[in-house]
Amino acid sequence: MERILEEAVRSGRGVLREGTVATYIPELAKSDPAALAAACCGIDGSIRSAGDTATRITVQSISKMASLGLALNICGEDLVFSRVGVEPSADPFNSIMRLEMRAPHRPQNPLINSGAILVLSLLPFRDSNERLEAVLGVMKKMSGNNHMSVNEAVAASERNTSDRNRSLGYFLRSVEAMEGNVENILDTYFRQCAIECTVRDLAVMGATLASGGVNPLNGDRVFSSRTSIILRALMQTCGLYDGSGDFAVRVGFPAKSGVGGGIMGSVPGRAGVAVVGPALDARGNSIGGIRTLEILSEKLSLRVL
Amino acid sequence: MERILEEAVRSGRGVLREGTVATYIPELAKSDPAALAAACCGIDGSIRSAGDTATRITVQSISKMASLGLALNICGEDLVFSRVGVEPSADPFNSIMRLEMRAPHRPQNPLINSGAILVLSLLPFRDSNERLEAVLGVMKKMSGNNHMSVNEAVAASERNTSDRNRSLGYFLRSVEAMEGNVENILDTYFRQCAIECTVRDLAVMGATLASGGVNPLNGDRVFSSRTSIILRALMQTCGLYDGSGDFAVRVGFPAKSGVGGGIMGSVPGRAGVAVVGPALDARGNSIGGIRTLEILSEKLSLRVL
Amino acid sequence: MERILEEAVRSGRGVLREGTVATYIPELAKSDPAALAAACCGIDGSIRSAGDTATRITVQSISKMASLGLALNICGEDLVFSRVGVEPSADPFNSIMRLEMRAPHRPQNPLINSGAILVLSLLPFRDSNERLEAVLGVMKKMSGNNHMSVNEAVAASERNTSDRNRSLGYFLRSVEAMEGNVENILDTYFRQCAIECTVRDLAVMGATLASGGVNPLNGDRVFSSRTSIILRALMQTCGLYDGSGDFAVRVGFPAKSGVGGGIMGSVPGRAGVAVVGPALDARGNSIGGIRTLEILSEKLSLRVL
Amino acid sequence: MERILEEAVRSGRGVLREGTVATYIPELAKSDPAALAAACCGIDGSIRSAGDTATRITVQSISKMASLGLALNICGEDLVFSRVGVEPSADPFNSIMRLEMRAPHRPQNPLINSGAILVLSLLPFRDSNERLEAVLGVMKKMSGNNHMSVNEAVAASERNTSDRNRSLGYFLRSVEAMEGNVENILDTYFRQCAIECTVRDLAVMGATLASGGVNPLNGDRVFSSRTSIILRALMQTCGLYDGSGDFAVRVGFPAKSGVGGGIMGSVPGRAGVAVVGPALDARGNSIGGIRTLEILSEKLSLRVL
Repeated sequence: MERILEEAVRSGRGVLREGTVATYIPELAKSDPAALAAACCGIDGSIRSAGDTATRITVQSISKMASLGLALNICGEDLVFSRVGVEPSADPFNSIMRLEMRAPHRPQNPLINSGAILVLSLLPFRDSNERLEAVLGVMKKMSGNNHMSVNEAVAASERNTSDRNRSLGYFLRSVEAMEGNVENILDTYFRQCAIECTVRDLAVMGATLASGGVNPLNGDRVFSSRTSIILRALMQTCGLYDGSGDFAVRVGFPAKSGVGGGIMGSVPGRAGVAVVGPALDARGNSIGGIRTLEILSEKLSLRVL
Repeated sequence: MERILEEAVRSGRGVLREGTVATYIPELAKSDPAALAAACCGIDGSIRSAGDTATRITVQSISKMASLGLALNICGEDLVFSRVGVEPSADPFNSIMRLEMRAPHRPQNPLINSGAILVLSLLPFRDSNERLEAVLGVMKKMSGNNHMSVNEAVAASERNTSDRNRSLGYFLRSVEAMEGNVENILDTYFRQCAIECTVRDLAVMGATLASGGVNPLNGDRVFSSRTSIILRALMQTCGLYDGSGDFAVRVGFPAKSGVGGGIMGSVPGRAGVAVVGPALDARGNSIGGIRTLEILSEKLSLRVL
Repeated sequence: MERILEEAVRSGRGVLREGTVATYIPELAKSDPAALAAACCGIDGSIRSAGDTATRITVQSISKMASLGLALNICGEDLVFSRVGVEPSADPFNSIMRLEMRAPHRPQNPLINSGAILVLSLLPFRDSNERLEAVLGVMKKMSGNNHMSVNEAVAASERNTSDRNRSLGYFLRSVEAMEGNVENILDTYFRQCAIECTVRDLAVMGATLASGGVNPLNGDRVFSSRTSIILRALMQTCGLYDGSGDFAVRVGFPAKSGVGGGIMGSVPGRAGVAVVGPALDARGNSIGGIRTLEILSEKLSLRVL
Repeated sequence: MERILEEAVRSGRGVLREGTVATYIPELAKSDPAALAAACCGIDGSIRSAGDTATRITVQSISKMASLGLALNICGEDLVFSRVGVEPSADPFNSIMRLEMRAPHRPQNPLINSGAILVLSLLPFRDSNERLEAVLGVMKKMSGNNHMSVNEAVAASERNTSDRNRSLGYFLRSVEAMEGNVENILDTYFRQCAIECTVRDLAVMGATLASGGVNPLNGDRVFSSRTSIILRALMQTCGLYDGSGDFAVRVGFPAKSGVGGGIMGSVPGRAGVAVVGPALDARGNSIGGIRTLEILSEKLSLRVL
């Protein structure tokens, strides 16, 4: 097992030079493009890892699974999916035009930026701090790591380079798809994206989804089985932005990526499988990470499709 | 002449009940849907009017001609049109999707909202107050009315219902079409839209453009002849939002409308012709005003197309 | 097993009245909206079925899996996917606008109509008859049913109501995404859509994909393991048009639907699971069929996501 | 007058090398990129010309004014504009996507290709020959030149490179915007585009529109005054494709261009002004022709905007 993880990471390193770290957020540009790590957490709680496992990244879009899960827990799926769709989008993650083009003017799914911002607006908290604490709380439960916290330098950097997300937020409100204080909602969004994690954290989070919502390290239930199913299904069809179809062919199990370089995979009933590698491909997914997962999927027969 | 104006206004009143006042800005919803007035100002400075000439409206989008003229005066046409196009847009005035759809990501023309916001960003002023004073100054020169001022209740109302314009502003900056402080630029925009005027003011403003940039009341030059040509050409092709083509058929001379219910027409070399009537058609143009202009165009042979 | 199938079909019948048969092709409008059947074929070749199993439908879009598989067999995946994408489309199956909107002007994936037409154009056959025979041959191998044939009345009906597909074909050629004789390619398309089948045929076809490309009835290899993976992955992300995301949540395994009312499901390594029910939902998928599959997925633990 | 025409043509020649002849129709690629001519026809019938006046080109899109005028004559404006809009389009002349994007699915105006094809479908003729004869008849009346005829080599070339127009035609029928035999309608379209003319013909045609529908050479009425107004208004807002706004600024009177290199201008109440110059700019308009018209507009004070 360790051997396979190491072999996969080695193979992943071979494509790193074709990628580049995210630069649209200045703090992310400081990431190490040469870092690469992989980890696997069985639903029995056993963890194995390889590569640069000490590398810390920010979760970025992977946080969308936590906030969506929280919204499903609190608001219920009927409410959530009356406000946001569940269909894959053919557009980039930050696209706005479909919101205008087609009625009803609601985000195509909760994993593109507009959808994730909308989901946050549904949460019944008084302010951004309360909301952020709740999302962070879910992420801690998913990972079993109570020390997870926001990298405030990255959060500040996100806030300063957030024109597109701000545009999305105000657009949603202008078409009455969203209510609430846009700046306040965005504040939570920028901070939840800046939560730091390691590849191990991501693997445990993936395992929590794989096991039907129960954290395999401590046995705590984070999500219902139904919520886990919804989250995994969305990861499968929309988890890697406009690279989701390619990922389904190459890797073949549910996963969610973030521009910090993380990918949290979830093999239902078996394991969480995660990678960390800040060098990204043109669609914003970890280039070495996808290659690593491709090898792992084949060698460990993880493909579910 | 007076008789024809009165006859045209009477005809315009006949369609008022098919229109409704703008409601998306609460203060505008208080406008009188039954009001209708028309005025004509020759390039010799002679003014005639008919109808509810005391009605005061806010200029709204008609202010875009003043701020664009100011930008052409200060920055020159080469700079301005390197940043915004001159082609009609088939989309509603507040549309965002073309900005994303096609590179270069610049507004289609300076008369849609995104274009007007961009034009303001080009003006080299320190803050919104200075910028607003400059735009208001141009409008005073165009109308020869030194008492024009901002209706602060309407400005506040615009500011509170400005989600779409805010979305446009941040989008423009996110695609690097615009620089500057978005909130600050929007502040000018909301206030210039809320400048109050009468039908007489609009007629003189139209006459200033008709005479090649010289105010017919006091002989002051506001714009160069070239700038007047550009402004009139844009009014002809883009002046009535996505109703510009219909207006060209029905009325046939350059004009610019605003959702306050004003339309400022300009018959080159002859006269400014304006209407005020807050009841709007589905595209946001004064329904009684267009009908009035249609009659005037025919009776006074004002058509240039 | 039989009991579960029958229970699922019974449950599916409960929603039939909310659906309607396809009417855009006159011959399809003659289908029986009350018909519903389900079948399961293990990769060991054992078949179980329930409901109106004698109902014959035309495969319609399900045929796209056969022609794509054929193209992968003959042309190789590199060639095929240099000409058509693998990403889900957020647009309806017959949409054209994305082809114009974004370069490269190629179909988003091989399962929307434009993509399926393009795939046919890649096949190196002399004429429509040869091409059709090859596609039909693949379908016979997948189903193990040598008696499959084209319903010529439906094919003629498709041909007569094919304006949109013709528009797609000529558009593809106009942007140089496709070469060849458009009418000739479309002729194959209309006829392959009109191939008749039963629910049993579909179940075996799904089982062939589930087993990695080997027909479980006769042991013949139809596709390589790699081709099976590609076909299943595309079914998962794009198989039910713009209802693919919803299907992933509700059912959770790869499947492909057709407007004839069939859905061919494939549970990797386990079974083909199919339904036939001509009453469709708003997206063109069998409304009773999806409900039936939802029950089967739960009762038989078929979900892979 | 002759001197001014010659000076304008000389100035126009200065930009010819920046243009290229249309190549998408092979026969058009044979045009002489160095040719340039201008002509002016007063509404009194006096004609002046300069440059390569013997150059024969095909009218291409300029024919749309004749077929639209014919449709207005026969069907009336209410019918015609219930089926096609009058608003400028921001898209290229052969764009399809707006037809799908927005309901009602009708062409934005009659001067883009989809609109022109639709207009032809409204004409009550038995076949393409009859329809073509009627359109050609209108063009002969407009120009006073009974020898105008179709260049069959160009028509054949158009027919062979007509994928996009065919796609538009079938799309229109698929969304029920158009009825009739698509191939038959397109046949007329290809042939009317291939009608040959000289710069003198175009100038007389423009003068016919300038005079309110009466041919200035023979006094025959071709169109009603109202129809002339409609045609001129559409030329002003939509006549030069997505370069119409720029043309309004630079030249400032109604005109219609064709990719053959002709531009037919019409100065209401004064004259027809035309140019011929096959070298085109990026939008498909005669590059030397626009420059020539710009000079003429200034020197002869032809601007109406």
